Amino acid sequence: MSVTAAAGFLAAGVACGLKSTGKKDLALVQNRGPLKNVASVFTSNRCKANPVLWSQQVMADGIADAIVLNSGGANCYTGARGFQTTHATAEAVAERLSISAGDVLVCSTGLIGEQLDLDKLKTGVWDAGLEILTGGATSAQAGLDAAHAIMTTDSVPKLSVRTVSALTVDGADYTIGGMAKGAGMLAPGLATMLVVITTDAVLSSAHLDAALRQATRVTFDRLDSDGCMSTNDTVTLMASGASGHEPTLDDFTAQLTALCQDLALQLQADAEGSSHDIAITVTGAVSEDEAVEVARAVSRSNLFKAAMFGNDPNWGRVLAAVGTTQATFDPYNVDVAFNGVKLCIAGEPGESRDLVDLSPRAVDVVIDIKAGPASATIWTNDLTHDYVHENSAYAS
Amino acid sequence: MSVTAAAGFLAAGVACGLKSTGKKDLALVQNRGPLKNVASVFTSNRCKANPVLWSQQVMADGIADAIVLNSGGANCYTGARGFQTTHATAEAVAERLSISAGDVLVCSTGLIGEQLDLDKLKTGVWDAGLEILTGGATSAQAGLDAAHAIMTTDSVPKLSVRTVSALTVDGADYTIGGMAKGAGMLAPGLATMLVVITTDAVLSSAHLDAALRQATRVTFDRLDSDGCMSTNDTVTLMASGASGHEPTLDDFTAQLTALCQDLALQLQADAEGSSHDIAITVTGAVSEDEAVEVARAVSRSNLFKAAMFGNDPNWGRVLAAVGTTQATFDPYNVDVAFNGVKLCIAGEPGESRDLVDLSPRAVDVVIDIKAGPASATIWTNDLTHDYVHENSAYAS
Repeated sequence: MSVTAAAGFLAAGVACGLKSTGKKDLALVQNRGPLKNVASVFTSNRCKANPVLWSQQVMADGIADAIVLNSGGANCYTGARGFQTTHATAEAVAERLSISAGDVLVCSTGLIGEQLDLDKLKTGVWDAGLEILTGGATSAQAGLDAAHAIMTTDSVPKLSVRTVSALTVDGADYTIGGMAKGAGMLAPGLATMLVVITTDAVLSSAHLDAALRQATRVTFDRLDSDGCMSTNDTVTLMASGASGHEPTLDDFTAQLTALCQDLALQLQADAEGSSHDIAITVTGAVSEDEAVEVARAVSRSNLFKAAMFGNDPNWGRVLAAVGTTQATFDPYNVDVAFNGVKLCIAGEPGESRDLVDLSPRAVDVVIDIKAGPASATIWTNDLTHDYVHENSAYAS
Repeated sequence: MSVTAAAGFLAAGVACGLKSTGKKDLALVQNRGPLKNVASVFTSNRCKANPVLWSQQVMADGIADAIVLNSGGANCYTGARGFQTTHATAEAVAERLSISAGDVLVCSTGLIGEQLDLDKLKTGVWDAGLEILTGGATSAQAGLDAAHAIMTTDSVPKLSVRTVSALTVDGADYTIGGMAKGAGMLAPGLATMLVVITTDAVLSSAHLDAALRQATRVTFDRLDSDGCMSTNDTVTLMASGASGHEPTLDDFTAQLTALCQDLALQLQADAEGSSHDIAITVTGAVSEDEAVEVARAVSRSNLFKAAMFGNDPNWGRVLAAVGTTQATFDPYNVDVAFNGVKLCIAGEPGESRDLVDLSPRAVDVVIDIKAGPASATIWTNDLTHDYVHENSAYAS
């Protein structure tokens, strides 16, 4: 299902030869309306890929008809020729679907610094467009094909759907669905990886933007698998209005946040080479921002992450990372618990390490800095032999 | 030689059982004067170990008679009892050498969150003191023993000596010698790891402080092996004045900087599990601080570091890291060279990757951001299977 679950959306995923494996590598999603409202958040990396530069222009008016996504190349640091490739891809979609190129968003993912093959892209757009024009593109399989086409080192496609009916206060009925890709370079600044979310709810572009920023702030932005920020991160939310139902902004935001969290945790679970999904929760902070700052510092400590790989509840490495932050707290009055066992109490050794079992994939680290009422969780992964292996291969 | 090369200094390194291997684990260095001037820089980590808290008090008046260092435990996050252990260690040194405990610096290194065995420390102090009181402690072997006693995961001791004579403008003669330890948690804020430097030059505490801050700023502070800042980092510089020669501050600073750089590069070469020594040089920055910011961001990218392990000149990962900084530059007008081969020119693919040979241990990455006249180099290492292995062992 994913992006085809909501009424008004069609999708396709095809293989056009960008991936040397012959697997699907181009996805196309069209919004048939009646609304064409859109909101996107992009990487805060200053080195933005050409499709990001293009899509920022396209979505400036809050309207988009379609989004085309390719794997097999990031089209980043490819200069003027690379930007022309993005532009020509949007033109090809526009021609195929009889829409305007200025309403076609483009996303790319793969290796940085290589030119994409425009002929292959055009072939892919033609084939994907054929599926959309000739039916079948609203099926669950079509949504799954699109999700497959945006995979790079992902081992599984990431999909999520929420149909909101009796669950809501007003008993209305609408659907949100989404797909995501991302397994490495997974530490977004404002967005993460490539994510497309569709809904048939009736929402203005401004409300989509507000809901998306709130949802990504506490989901994708709290995912920090390897501390590396991509040049291509894009999360796009498209609304067709085809359900005819207009939810309240609060209700929609809550539903969207739940969907984004589901996708974010799927990204975490499939992170390159990982053997643990680690939730680092900081409590007792004076503000949510400071809780995030402390948790993120721990999530970026290679020594902590290597210890997790070794199932070693090394709380000293947690505190060494905590001490590099500017957050408000007394460094000598901090508690640290691993999977519920308080190994450090008020800055001194607490319960025995022997009580902690880190062999399950899920690890909970809770750091109480005892300075205020705020808390936040960052989701990260361990640093493993397989992570090093996967990322040390030539031109991976 | 190391710390015993300069006149006026005695040293010893003994085994007292803190290391389960039975290897040397306690070093003692005494300054016999006539001057007892000292300067130290400490970790900028807010979670400071007990010996750091103690030594900050001791050196506040610019005077110290001795420094005692132990491996086998960091004495960090050990609470009031841990601070008492540090205090009692200084008292034991004071009693043994008939000096004041308030003039004894203490350094510890090893696992965080474990209490040190005070009885063993006292035995070590007694034995090391015996060597100092009965002769032999000025020998090259004594300096080597001390350097061995502060090793943790280091595979070799780090020593450096400079005797300044005809080299200087005024033909005077004095010596600077030092020892260092450090192989992991190697990303200092203000200082790095444990380093003791001795000199027989005549210098005030204020001049020692000025020279040491200038030297560490461009040497130890530019070393960023794994992005992890220790809780125990200390660099101490002691002057005996025994040569009778008073160098100019500029001359002494230059000599000290060269010695610190030698020790820093020895630390880099022995970094845990590393297979490459990588120098990341940023040129064309508007300020030295911004050059450091950009180079440090690259040095902390796990994806870049894993690529180096795989001998993969993946310049896209360099630019993805550069883009996370706030430095002044045009992200689309950057050059990147690996070992002299310009793979990226003005933000587009340049020379062929095939021209780059990354098989030697030494790798030079030069990033020209074309915004100003300043430059800086950060020294780092690659991210390897062995780094993960060494740091994933239980309670390592």
